[in-house]
Amino acid sequence: MMEYKIPSLSTKLDGELWKKINGKTKPLGSLGMLEEIAFKIGKIQESLVPKIKNPNVIVFAGDHGIADEGVSFYPKSVSYEMLYNYMQGGAAINVFARQHKIDFKVVDAGVDHDFDPSLSIINKKIDYGTKNYRFGPAMTKDQCLEGLKRGSEIIENINKEGCNFIAFGEKGIGNTSSAALLLSVLADIPLIECVGRGTGLDKKGVKSKFELLNEALLQYKGGNDAIDVLTQFGGFEIVMIAGAMLKAAELKMTLLIDGFIITSALLAASKINPNVLEYCLFAHKSNEQAHIKMLNYLQAKPILDIGMRLGEGTGTMVCFPIVKSAVEFINKMASFQTAGVSESKESELIG
Amino acid sequence: MMEYKIPSLSTKLDGELWKKINGKTKPLGSLGMLEEIAFKIGKIQESLVPKIKNPNVIVFAGDHGIADEGVSFYPKSVSYEMLYNYMQGGAAINVFARQHKIDFKVVDAGVDHDFDPSLSIINKKIDYGTKNYRFGPAMTKDQCLEGLKRGSEIIENINKEGCNFIAFGEKGIGNTSSAALLLSVLADIPLIECVGRGTGLDKKGVKSKFELLNEALLQYKGGNDAIDVLTQFGGFEIVMIAGAMLKAAELKMTLLIDGFIITSALLAASKINPNVLEYCLFAHKSNEQAHIKMLNYLQAKPILDIGMRLGEGTGTMVCFPIVKSAVEFINKMASFQTAGVSESKESELIG
Repeated sequence: MMEYKIPSLSTKLDGELWKKINGKTKPLGSLGMLEEIAFKIGKIQESLVPKIKNPNVIVFAGDHGIADEGVSFYPKSVSYEMLYNYMQGGAAINVFARQHKIDFKVVDAGVDHDFDPSLSIINKKIDYGTKNYRFGPAMTKDQCLEGLKRGSEIIENINKEGCNFIAFGEKGIGNTSSAALLLSVLADIPLIECVGRGTGLDKKGVKSKFELLNEALLQYKGGNDAIDVLTQFGGFEIVMIAGAMLKAAELKMTLLIDGFIITSALLAASKINPNVLEYCLFAHKSNEQAHIKMLNYLQAKPILDIGMRLGEGTGTMVCFPIVKSAVEFINKMASFQTAGVSESKESELIG
Repeated sequence: MMEYKIPSLSTKLDGELWKKINGKTKPLGSLGMLEEIAFKIGKIQESLVPKIKNPNVIVFAGDHGIADEGVSFYPKSVSYEMLYNYMQGGAAINVFARQHKIDFKVVDAGVDHDFDPSLSIINKKIDYGTKNYRFGPAMTKDQCLEGLKRGSEIIENINKEGCNFIAFGEKGIGNTSSAALLLSVLADIPLIECVGRGTGLDKKGVKSKFELLNEALLQYKGGNDAIDVLTQFGGFEIVMIAGAMLKAAELKMTLLIDGFIITSALLAASKINPNVLEYCLFAHKSNEQAHIKMLNYLQAKPILDIGMRLGEGTGTMVCFPIVKSAVEFINKMASFQTAGVSESKESELIG
């Protein structure tokens, strides 16, 4: 298995970063989370003039054997059909990535379909979908390790092209089931609290999904080692994302985390190296009910809460301009001094 | 007084708008508030292909006699000093408006300063700041009506230039005091619940601010007619914004509402014609504590909640790309049909 050397963020510039933020022509703290975001990116980049360079959003796609059990509201074929939709530019993630001029990439981590090689899909296929983990592991341990490695390689290549900011997306019918199981085992939360509606199950559907996943959980005899859990319940896209995240943090990139599935990959990655969390911004709180539990477990504060639950990295893209605003203000706003604006006084009333 | 003929929104296209939104390649409802925003703008424009045309953000500025009492953390001079900062492009609102390529305008509604006419500040000055309402009305009724009229005129001109989307901002040291009084009288909420930290008062400062405003409130013998209340406690910028909002709604523009002060102007406007509310999107929940009470009173659901309380319309600009995402998805996303993606099935499990 690869080693990921992720340093804890240096506190060296903390004082200077806050001094710069607080010197801007605005009441102290009045930009709220934008100030925290600017501070965080400054820390990650160890710079008072942080920059977002060649930002990318990558959608990792994979199929899930469990989808054959009907855990999703949609048929399995939607995974590969949506990849064609991405190629035609018609999906939500295309629209939002274009809106913000973000480089958009699609990785076939393990879709149950052969794509024409002429399509601009990055082929990292591990297999044609995972096995149905109702009856045993979703993949072999070798496949899991290979997935992590391939995810890391993708990020190394993108980083070489000058990218320092990466947003994560996913596609895979059935993958909220994987995410629920990862959350339950890795964060030790009862499975019933981890299972949600996914793409649109009703109450009865959620109950059936829980019963099925509970059966899968009960026959799992392994522990809570991240690799073991990913091997048992992961998806190829989830594994590859975890590897990508670990490498991105090692390369001191800023990671923008999407919803339930992406956060489940991060949860797994954080069990491999917890320092990865220091490099993350959390785009939104998904409407998938257990996402907030996952965020709380990671002590993560999401930026948006607008009821989204689409996946594909759409939450990251809708959030992106807010992150960008943080970088803009710390670099471009005037200070009280340069603008000749009076600083706060002790009001007579306060005095 | 001007009449504002604001039609209630037609429900004619409701069915077709939802059909279009629901036909996009995404799980039903999975874009959350973006879907509501797209629907709303579609309704306002009576169009299945809504467009944001020449969006503008306008900052209305005015001074407040009450500021002489030290209700703010900043000296009164900051109002005009910040207008120079706007002219130099160094304020937060400049940075965010530039980020999103939004046309930015500044209106002198009543700043206590003479600006060089060569500066691109729209001069609609009613007076050099309001009177101190501790001892009597902030302005005359004629000034109030003139303020509404001038606000309307500004919007008429901008609308003629092809703008159909307007974001509101303000600047005026002391204006959270006005907003607190408007909220208390117009929404019948005890003043103590309406007073907050403004630009940065501590607990003691807030207490002193409350006591002073309470004194002002107790000596007011008028009723809760919007014009009377604006005359008594308004600022010139607040009055002008209210007039601008009413005209913008009459012209079927979409209004993007900022924080505490802007919402107080809308509250007043809604008492003149409640239909104005139907044309509004609410950018964010300000960190000024009473803003949420004001939003609740107006049954308004803010898009962002990221702890901002800067004013200037900054909340609208940070929110703008999200509104834009709504318009983008409804116009540019593929439908299940055109993309050849399978629609949801009744899962066997749901059965």
